[in-house]
Amino acid sequence: MKLTFLGTGAGLPSKSRNVSSLALQWTEGMFDTWLFDCGEATQIQLLHTPIKPGRITKIFISHLHGDHIFGLPGFLSSRSFQGGEATPLEIYGPEGIAAYIETSLQISETKVAYPIIIHDLTQGILFENDVAIVEAKSLQHTIPSYGFRIVEKDKPGALLVDRLVEDGVQPGPHYQQIKDGQQVALPDGRVLNGKEYIGEAKKGRVVTILGDTSYCEAAIELAEDADLLIHEATYAEADKAEQAKDYGHSTALQAAEVAHKARVRQLVLTHLSSRYQDEDELHSLLLDARNLHENMLLASDLLTIELRLSEKD
Amino acid sequence: MKLTFLGTGAGLPSKSRNVSSLALQWTEGMFDTWLFDCGEATQIQLLHTPIKPGRITKIFISHLHGDHIFGLPGFLSSRSFQGGEATPLEIYGPEGIAAYIETSLQISETKVAYPIIIHDLTQGILFENDVAIVEAKSLQHTIPSYGFRIVEKDKPGALLVDRLVEDGVQPGPHYQQIKDGQQVALPDGRVLNGKEYIGEAKKGRVVTILGDTSYCEAAIELAEDADLLIHEATYAEADKAEQAKDYGHSTALQAAEVAHKARVRQLVLTHLSSRYQDEDELHSLLLDARNLHENMLLASDLLTIELRLSEKD
Repeated sequence: MKLTFLGTGAGLPSKSRNVSSLALQWTEGMFDTWLFDCGEATQIQLLHTPIKPGRITKIFISHLHGDHIFGLPGFLSSRSFQGGEATPLEIYGPEGIAAYIETSLQISETKVAYPIIIHDLTQGILFENDVAIVEAKSLQHTIPSYGFRIVEKDKPGALLVDRLVEDGVQPGPHYQQIKDGQQVALPDGRVLNGKEYIGEAKKGRVVTILGDTSYCEAAIELAEDADLLIHEATYAEADKAEQAKDYGHSTALQAAEVAHKARVRQLVLTHLSSRYQDEDELHSLLLDARNLHENMLLASDLLTIELRLSEKD
Repeated sequence: MKLTFLGTGAGLPSKSRNVSSLALQWTEGMFDTWLFDCGEATQIQLLHTPIKPGRITKIFISHLHGDHIFGLPGFLSSRSFQGGEATPLEIYGPEGIAAYIETSLQISETKVAYPIIIHDLTQGILFENDVAIVEAKSLQHTIPSYGFRIVEKDKPGALLVDRLVEDGVQPGPHYQQIKDGQQVALPDGRVLNGKEYIGEAKKGRVVTILGDTSYCEAAIELAEDADLLIHEATYAEADKAEQAKDYGHSTALQAAEVAHKARVRQLVLTHLSSRYQDEDELHSLLLDARNLHENMLLASDLLTIELRLSEKD
């Protein structure tokens, strides 16, 4: 799977960081793309990526603050002309998201060419198919805000074709039975144990994407042993913990604490305040966090992270 | 006055042309900035200009299509943090604009720090002060769409100080009486005719800014003898007049016809469809229009046009 940051700033966009949106492209098992939040100009950021709006089949909205939703009406409107004429779109967002979308589309007389299915977001399992499960939990913010745990299901091992051919078993309908791990009687009288011809299963990846939040237990629970945790760091300085809490946000050090406690493999910081305009200075403010959780990355707009199945132990 | 194009594309943004917005900065008589339309990402385009959001005191919305209004909630929200805490903002837009703004701000729990005054837009005089008058007329589009004629009031001539000093009249309180064109008795017994010491009055400029429209008489009326006409040209090709009419839009040639009939000094084409990705090819499609109205410019994003008072004959 690939994750592309479309906006890594906080409430106010800056020249270098747009407001929040993140695209998750599935590259095995399914080929859908999901968006997490859709701040203003998300559709414009997408123009600078290879992501096709028509391939985006789900949008998860963490919370209703403007920097996370004001790009929705424009994205929904343009998607009709960008290969999304026939593909339904499902939106998961806190109560109020349906009224916002309906009013925006109705007043602008926007007619979209595809069905939009809106789900009111609550805690629990939001979605499950053969490939993945998405779970949401409430975080701590000034308004209801959610985090998402995306768990990819384990992949069964591949059929070991080379070993079968070596053992004189030629391709045919029985390959499927072998792949299913069954006992298979061959025409020459041999009985094969399918399980011996299947490679090792691969563990699915776990990605945790959080909305705006101050430091909280739910964040740690959602991030438990995740391969990747995307955490907000509105405040870069470790000594801004009090302001962060007051405004329902986190410091970079608090994000690192969540990652550390949850034994996260890779932490990515995003949602940086527009007050940090000097990237060198910003990196120097993140040293405390990096000391606590070394495998930490500062997101930047249009950065893509590729998570390969084989990278999992 | 200065006009800065923040978005010169049509319904769909492209990498090079954002959706519609135009800033008019007053540089004499008043120092306000006005926006005409506020498509998505207008607040981001503004970051690339010297325009201060807090200085924007009026927004005129030509019509309610998404590419002209979806940037409003984000702009209104950010303006509180960009020097606009204390300056009221007036918005003129077709019926429905108030409900759109209220719903967007309410659902996102956005609190703006300044008063917003919303005027339902109808035909006639929208605004008048010492410096300018703004008039609106209905155009022809798929939904109600308006054009604006901004008429700057004539400026009285300047006091000819050099001539006064030459005639032995030193600065003093009587300068104001002379400037007002009165008869003034000097201490040495002379009587001056103030009118002889005032330079020529300068004619105010006329700028016409149209919303989306197909070719119509109202456009010509609004543009009568204007110094500058900003006209949409969704279709560059002269032979697309039929499609243009069907969708409530104009070809570049039709825009040139309006400019020609209205004896406009300078025509600027904007609202170009995203289908025109090759700028050279686009310019070649505009030859017919340029032949009809030579003084024609194709707008580009972030282009600024300065209209000086002295430029007027």
